[in-house]
Amino acid sequence: MRTIHVTASKEYDVLIGEGLLDKCGELTAKVVRPCKCVIVSDDTVDELYGDRAQISFSYAGFDVTRFAFPAGEASKNLATLTDILNALGEAGLSRSDLVVALGGGVTGDMAGFAAAIYARGIRFVQIPTTLLAAVDSSVGGKTAVDMPFGKNMVGAFHQPSLVITDTDVLRDLPAEQLSNGCAEAVKCGVLNDPALFELLSGGDWLDDIDEVVERCVTYKRDVVAGDEFDTGSRAFLNLGHTFGHAIEHLSGYRLLHGQCVGIGMLMAAAAAKCPEDMILRIADCLRRNGLPTRCDYPAAALAKAALNDKKRAGGSITLVLPEAIGKCRLEKVPVSELPRCFEAALASQEALGL
Amino acid sequence: MRTIHVTASKEYDVLIGEGLLDKCGELTAKVVRPCKCVIVSDDTVDELYGDRAQISFSYAGFDVTRFAFPAGEASKNLATLTDILNALGEAGLSRSDLVVALGGGVTGDMAGFAAAIYARGIRFVQIPTTLLAAVDSSVGGKTAVDMPFGKNMVGAFHQPSLVITDTDVLRDLPAEQLSNGCAEAVKCGVLNDPALFELLSGGDWLDDIDEVVERCVTYKRDVVAGDEFDTGSRAFLNLGHTFGHAIEHLSGYRLLHGQCVGIGMLMAAAAAKCPEDMILRIADCLRRNGLPTRCDYPAAALAKAALNDKKRAGGSITLVLPEAIGKCRLEKVPVSELPRCFEAALASQEALGL
Repeated sequence: MRTIHVTASKEYDVLIGEGLLDKCGELTAKVVRPCKCVIVSDDTVDELYGDRAQISFSYAGFDVTRFAFPAGEASKNLATLTDILNALGEAGLSRSDLVVALGGGVTGDMAGFAAAIYARGIRFVQIPTTLLAAVDSSVGGKTAVDMPFGKNMVGAFHQPSLVITDTDVLRDLPAEQLSNGCAEAVKCGVLNDPALFELLSGGDWLDDIDEVVERCVTYKRDVVAGDEFDTGSRAFLNLGHTFGHAIEHLSGYRLLHGQCVGIGMLMAAAAAKCPEDMILRIADCLRRNGLPTRCDYPAAALAKAALNDKKRAGGSITLVLPEAIGKCRLEKVPVSELPRCFEAALASQEALGL
Repeated sequence: MRTIHVTASKEYDVLIGEGLLDKCGELTAKVVRPCKCVIVSDDTVDELYGDRAQISFSYAGFDVTRFAFPAGEASKNLATLTDILNALGEAGLSRSDLVVALGGGVTGDMAGFAAAIYARGIRFVQIPTTLLAAVDSSVGGKTAVDMPFGKNMVGAFHQPSLVITDTDVLRDLPAEQLSNGCAEAVKCGVLNDPALFELLSGGDWLDDIDEVVERCVTYKRDVVAGDEFDTGSRAFLNLGHTFGHAIEHLSGYRLLHGQCVGIGMLMAAAAAKCPEDMILRIADCLRRNGLPTRCDYPAAALAKAALNDKKRAGGSITLVLPEAIGKCRLEKVPVSELPRCFEAALASQEALGL
């Protein structure tokens, strides 16, 4: 088992290793004295892993209730959040009790947000069951729900008490889900970690998944430590996301987040006028991991969708632009220039035959 | 104008004085660079003061939108919160924009909570228009909504950027509303401030309302500074509230919060076996300010209602017990003893002819 210690407004560990799901209660009991807890999952994950998690928490002395909501991004809204909060209330959780988020990004975001606001904040433990959640959303304390006017527009910063990633669970994921999470790992490589990028470029890293998760979490831990509340350097983590969110939005959320982030990274590299061979290396890495490298939306529509991004402050938007594999820079761009950025990116992708 | 500087996780001023409503935009502009803002009120307050606030904010350079929800405690729920959040989204607020809570406790709690979670937290300014909000809820950063399973069970700690109390507005309140707020001021007197208690005992303190608000806010400021997140000494502010919440609940919220806190304080004094003359002095102070001194609910029902209080941790509950006018103590009581506390309190009140 690998342990990564996170120092934010609250200190906690991220545990990564095989077979941890069946020890999750015992591992949690080391940092949270057994109490009432509610395990929150979607119905798919509840069916697959709910019993094992419940048995482990019960065995460790927790008084366990389970709550499952319908699987899918469409559940990530205030109505489901209300259902979760009512479940915590019905279970009689007090300020000293615990929420366990067992699932992917949607579950972590919503159960974490519910924990952030129930009784003005109670503790929660993340057990990510997707690669995307393991390498990205389960660490750093961002929680949220989607609103009619924008994704993740309502939420809170709330750090977990513990993150437990069972890499056996990740290895059992369908290929599409592994690809989806891999995009965020590729992002970490492009941002900071050439060795990770090389490992992922091989396309066959499942035996090294503990290493992949550890490298991503360590990088994110360092970024979050420097800017927990996302007022500066945490913006680096948005590499591919300004472009990617626009694509995701235009696809009506039929494209997966990782697929959009992958295309978005390529667009960012193109907009940054990176050397051709570097763009092609990123494209190759994405392809080898089952990720697309282009989309067919027009620049104007993409720019418009990107402007719904809550991260714009006043008349400008901060883009993350690659300089080399392992090095990026932040650049504040006037909102009015965004259509031109998208056009340049699409033209460059076209020219490279992506 | 009186200025009280609050030092919590965020520093801010509480401004108290006559005629401040018409200067609220100008006063805010000194701490928040003019930006988009949404003024949130209930429909009663919006009708009375919305135009004046809007004119002042617009004149100071803010881009103002107004949103009003139906007046009343019944609005303090997730459905109204959702409406407020959607209004913030429709107004296009970004992370650097502002929410203004113009109203009483319900408005401050809900608009403050909306600001706490919109885009994971944006700034807000409190303009309390009730005495209760001015002396209590507008300071300290507690925000919340009620849930089917309990009052204030979902919320956040979120400090305002500024609190502006126009004491002309407070003086225009109907007598019942002044009484309602006065109970929290009497509470401050019993907790910490014999001179304030004396002033309020005269029953005719409207000319000294700036002084009353200042003393209450200063005391609350000091308590919050010592325990912002309510894990210890902030519990003192619950004087009268464990008993009071139970009464409020049993009345189906027909009794006002201040009325219940007043009765609750007397019950706490009785449960603490305070000297008779001290209990009678508190009762006299409440009566002179139009507040009731007893309720007719049985001890068992009160104890049961009190146990729904989220502040109980495990098998015990922390009571605030008066020792003298200006001095109280905290006492952890096993939940099982609560019915006996209520019985003792009711018996003592009966004996004293309250």
